[in-house]
Amino acid sequence: MKNFADNLIEAIKKKKSHVVVGLDPDYDKLPQSLKKVYGVSLKSVGAAITEFNYHIINAVYDLVPAIKPQIAFYERYGIEGIKAFIRTVRYGKKKGLIVIEDAKRNDIGSTATAYSEAHIGRVKLNAREVPIYDVDAITINPYLGADGIIPFLHDVNRYHKGIFVLVKTSNPSSSDLQDLDIIYKHNRYKLYEVVARLVDEWGSHSEGNSGYTSVGAVVGATFPKEAEILRKLMPRTYFLVPGYGAQGGKPEDVINCFNQDGYGALIAASRSINYAFLNSKYKESEFAEAARYATIKMNQEIEEVLKEKNILPW
Amino acid sequence: MKNFADNLIEAIKKKKSHVVVGLDPDYDKLPQSLKKVYGVSLKSVGAAITEFNYHIINAVYDLVPAIKPQIAFYERYGIEGIKAFIRTVRYGKKKGLIVIEDAKRNDIGSTATAYSEAHIGRVKLNAREVPIYDVDAITINPYLGADGIIPFLHDVNRYHKGIFVLVKTSNPSSSDLQDLDIIYKHNRYKLYEVVARLVDEWGSHSEGNSGYTSVGAVVGATFPKEAEILRKLMPRTYFLVPGYGAQGGKPEDVINCFNQDGYGALIAASRSINYAFLNSKYKESEFAEAARYATIKMNQEIEEVLKEKNILPW
Repeated sequence: MKNFADNLIEAIKKKKSHVVVGLDPDYDKLPQSLKKVYGVSLKSVGAAITEFNYHIINAVYDLVPAIKPQIAFYERYGIEGIKAFIRTVRYGKKKGLIVIEDAKRNDIGSTATAYSEAHIGRVKLNAREVPIYDVDAITINPYLGADGIIPFLHDVNRYHKGIFVLVKTSNPSSSDLQDLDIIYKHNRYKLYEVVARLVDEWGSHSEGNSGYTSVGAVVGATFPKEAEILRKLMPRTYFLVPGYGAQGGKPEDVINCFNQDGYGALIAASRSINYAFLNSKYKESEFAEAARYATIKMNQEIEEVLKEKNILPW
Repeated sequence: MKNFADNLIEAIKKKKSHVVVGLDPDYDKLPQSLKKVYGVSLKSVGAAITEFNYHIINAVYDLVPAIKPQIAFYERYGIEGIKAFIRTVRYGKKKGLIVIEDAKRNDIGSTATAYSEAHIGRVKLNAREVPIYDVDAITINPYLGADGIIPFLHDVNRYHKGIFVLVKTSNPSSSDLQDLDIIYKHNRYKLYEVVARLVDEWGSHSEGNSGYTSVGAVVGATFPKEAEILRKLMPRTYFLVPGYGAQGGKPEDVINCFNQDGYGALIAASRSINYAFLNSKYKESEFAEAARYATIKMNQEIEEVLKEKNILPW
């Protein structure tokens, strides 16, 4: 069976890149030129962030396999923000990119079904089945256990989609819960290790031709030691790795997220690419060129550490 | 300082009710009469669920202090669903109801800020600050630790809003993570107990005149033994208690969620009220009357167990 991970690896090979570009629009940080065109009603903010995203996508679509819009930054602008989100998803797919929605959704079974139908599945309206957000993959929070995951697995298998379950997140206080010491079957583990075992189990019926399952894991670039442990606990799991760049994750920090086949990790950066023009030799009007340059540089940085470890797959 | 919990208790006293009516619209279950009027485009589905909600609100607004729309059931219908959500929130507030959004949002700090601004705070557009969803309180997932909570606390204090943090959820597999055995400062706890201690701590600077904080907890009606423990660990925390009715929670199961002052728990029911007409002597066209009757009955059931325990506060 060809699954989401197979499609992802195909795109990674084609682009020779393990990078996913986050699209986290922030009206405050948009180039003045765009703000001037559109003004500051919510409607015009929606139009401005849509145009900003189109420019970023045009600048990077030939360099990376995937984009990762974070829906919080669209929800922030209400209806007009959600419209911008849907347009961004469509445009990204049109340009051949895999779209991973960062939404961290979670709920009990019946409600998780509604989320899954909306984001990766189809919504039933009498005899019709309608796609709504129609992204390729979505991030999911595991705190509610299997009930909150299983409805997504149905759509994952039916529509060849993917999910990425939060295991060890990139933020400093991820330790509050995720690093707690657990007694599990008479042994001592960290909570993130127990979640990793569950993720491996949840993915076990969705293995693709590549050997990777459709149930991925979110593992922060800021915790390389934990990543090493998690890589062993979830050998067939694709990692989505946030925290690179603005959050402090470095090339040598993410190497542990890869498998020996040179795959298994998709490294995400948002701010350091979207707003590269704020800290560079570029003018504000050259924000797209700045994003392209930052993406090329990030591709090279990651390629270099993979080469050093002799696991560059191309 | 008058906080969210004070406003909630004032409304509870006025209505003599500890019930919150969930508004979880499902197009499949709507009365045929409404479906016939509107048809099955997404736009018409949005209109139908808005009208359905208006009828339910009209039927119960004098009986309960609050409503709890679950945003998944609106997101499911895309832009038109979100429009219906915003209209429902506005109408509920116009009818004097406190609106608790069930969204279970969570993310790292900068992203949690975006969610908080959108749902309970204000979004900055140059010099203006604009409310977007503008609910009175929202449910939050704690898996990312304090970073994901603190941005909400800012808006909680600034705008007298509330949050309810997931502690022990009502679904069967909530045990997968929440019931794990933790070693914490040389003692053994359940994960939900550790989260309860964090919730108590996160709320400590938001105590109101009533003694309750603005940081509430979600504690499922389906776990009365756990509720007893959690009530002691979080004496100043208001509980939002889902799982009553359709999920199996009974009046005698929720009594442990209350404090000895007869407050401290808001019992939620959605399906058993929204779709009361499906299992009753009422005709489909009398869905609002059926919802009203189910709400009156639920108020009575809860009043009865509080009376038995001598903690009915009116």
